[in-house]
Amino acid sequence: MNELLPAGLTATAVVAASSANLGPGFDSLGLALSLYDEIVVETTESGLLIEVEGEGFGQVPLGPDHLVVRAIERGLEVAGLRAPGLVVRCRNAIPHSRGLGSSAAAVVGGLAAANGLVAQSNSEPISELDLVQLSSEFEGHPDNAAAAVLGGAVVSWIDTNTHPPVYSAAKVRLHPDIHLFAAVPEVKSSTAETRVLLPDLVSHQDARFNLSRAALLVLALTERPDLLMAATEDALHQRQRGPAMPASAEYLQLLRRCGLAAVLSGAGPSVLALGTAPDLPAEVIEYGTAHGFTVNKIAVGDGVRWSSGVATRA
Amino acid sequence: MNELLPAGLTATAVVAASSANLGPGFDSLGLALSLYDEIVVETTESGLLIEVEGEGFGQVPLGPDHLVVRAIERGLEVAGLRAPGLVVRCRNAIPHSRGLGSSAAAVVGGLAAANGLVAQSNSEPISELDLVQLSSEFEGHPDNAAAAVLGGAVVSWIDTNTHPPVYSAAKVRLHPDIHLFAAVPEVKSSTAETRVLLPDLVSHQDARFNLSRAALLVLALTERPDLLMAATEDALHQRQRGPAMPASAEYLQLLRRCGLAAVLSGAGPSVLALGTAPDLPAEVIEYGTAHGFTVNKIAVGDGVRWSSGVATRA
Repeated sequence: MNELLPAGLTATAVVAASSANLGPGFDSLGLALSLYDEIVVETTESGLLIEVEGEGFGQVPLGPDHLVVRAIERGLEVAGLRAPGLVVRCRNAIPHSRGLGSSAAAVVGGLAAANGLVAQSNSEPISELDLVQLSSEFEGHPDNAAAAVLGGAVVSWIDTNTHPPVYSAAKVRLHPDIHLFAAVPEVKSSTAETRVLLPDLVSHQDARFNLSRAALLVLALTERPDLLMAATEDALHQRQRGPAMPASAEYLQLLRRCGLAAVLSGAGPSVLALGTAPDLPAEVIEYGTAHGFTVNKIAVGDGVRWSSGVATRA
Repeated sequence: MNELLPAGLTATAVVAASSANLGPGFDSLGLALSLYDEIVVETTESGLLIEVEGEGFGQVPLGPDHLVVRAIERGLEVAGLRAPGLVVRCRNAIPHSRGLGSSAAAVVGGLAAANGLVAQSNSEPISELDLVQLSSEFEGHPDNAAAAVLGGAVVSWIDTNTHPPVYSAAKVRLHPDIHLFAAVPEVKSSTAETRVLLPDLVSHQDARFNLSRAALLVLALTERPDLLMAATEDALHQRQRGPAMPASAEYLQLLRRCGLAAVLSGAGPSVLALGTAPDLPAEVIEYGTAHGFTVNKIAVGDGVRWSSGVATRA
């Protein structure tokens, strides 16, 4: 039986958006983006109250199935704890269903908030390694989750020889000359739906294509930003998703023709562009805006942070 | 009509062995090894004389189809030159048909020797980039060739949208804590034969498996040698080749169980092991020796060098 926490404890977590599936790096290469959700949790005598502010307001069911709540409870369970009741307040800046890792942020943020409560008990806090594992178990793939946990760029990988699979990740130092731009459309997408578009079988040649570019992308991100264009080529998922998001596919191609290493962010429909120039050409931004995208320069995101008490992000 | 070189010019090239297909990096990740072939070429009035010393002596046909000769002639052709006659002397240290890149060395060495002749004409020498391209055209894949040209570890990639395909490569800085060990069996193998064992189609999951490990391998080779074991896992070619070379497959597994990141060298049957300990355990060497392998520590190889005149390697 898990130990019952007292009422009146509070904790806060701040967690970043992320782009997964970076170019050739399907299910592996992720990048945290400086757009943050904040979660404040408080233990109460009983019941569950969820308040959502910002993105997702009025759209997500506010019951025990709420992803943040499930993650908090999972985090407490792992630490051998449970809460008699919870108040959970989410201040969301990460748009939902745009391929920006809002689900991973909810899970990682919930687990981290739980850690803020665990720190007020006699239990061991969840390690960074376990945060990657637990959050990836929710997601089924580790690239968003690992980016949200560790911050920056990550290589992640899955060992499916065990149940559950073991999810691992390592941070990749980003070259300081690399600038990021996010193009976020109004239209939404569902990962579950777009994943269906991917074939079960691919040619050995396409597999070789992507592994060579994935290897190159790590080199390009760390030391050779001049190779970003070749390093972001992909044969395994982006072209296949194009028909489900034609505006994103078209904008991605336009960005690439302009010399920007554009990739789908996660399963789309957002587009992430990497380049060494500090700004996008005005006409590229104008085209994006005219076609329903909000185009902004965006910084690399930090790894998740948590604290006991109600701490508001500076 | 290509310009005719005078008789009496000499040039020398020194070129390293290489391991290609490193773990997950099929057709992409290569590593030069400090085992060198030397080629000395001399222009004559007419005819073709080939002398081979060391590896391959008495086994390779000594006519115009000889790989080194074809590469020299190709190199001269690209520079707009031709030789009335040639004497080619090969002093070979790289074993043939063992997965150690002897063919790539022959091609790269031949092209480089041609460059040593070109330097004595008014023509432009072949650039490093073009050496990678021309040698990969002979091979059909760039990983051995690029390693032999550039030295050290390389990421290489193929753009098949053109005819011939464009072959590119970038050098990867190796972490100084990484030590290499080569296990070379007596038994030979043929890349052409073992390539047939690879399927045309693979699962999307296996493709994802390899791209994540290939990305990780670049990180492991440069900054995180502690991750070499996970980073050298492969689903696309090694297991498939096992039945054709059971002793290599078994020794590879034994090395991995001992914590060494062992991979097939090229298409095998040699095995390359990467580790952070400066030596192999004695029992690992003994097992290898007892099963027909010559097991040695080996340094990383340098990129190909050439010079005009008869220069013998120091």
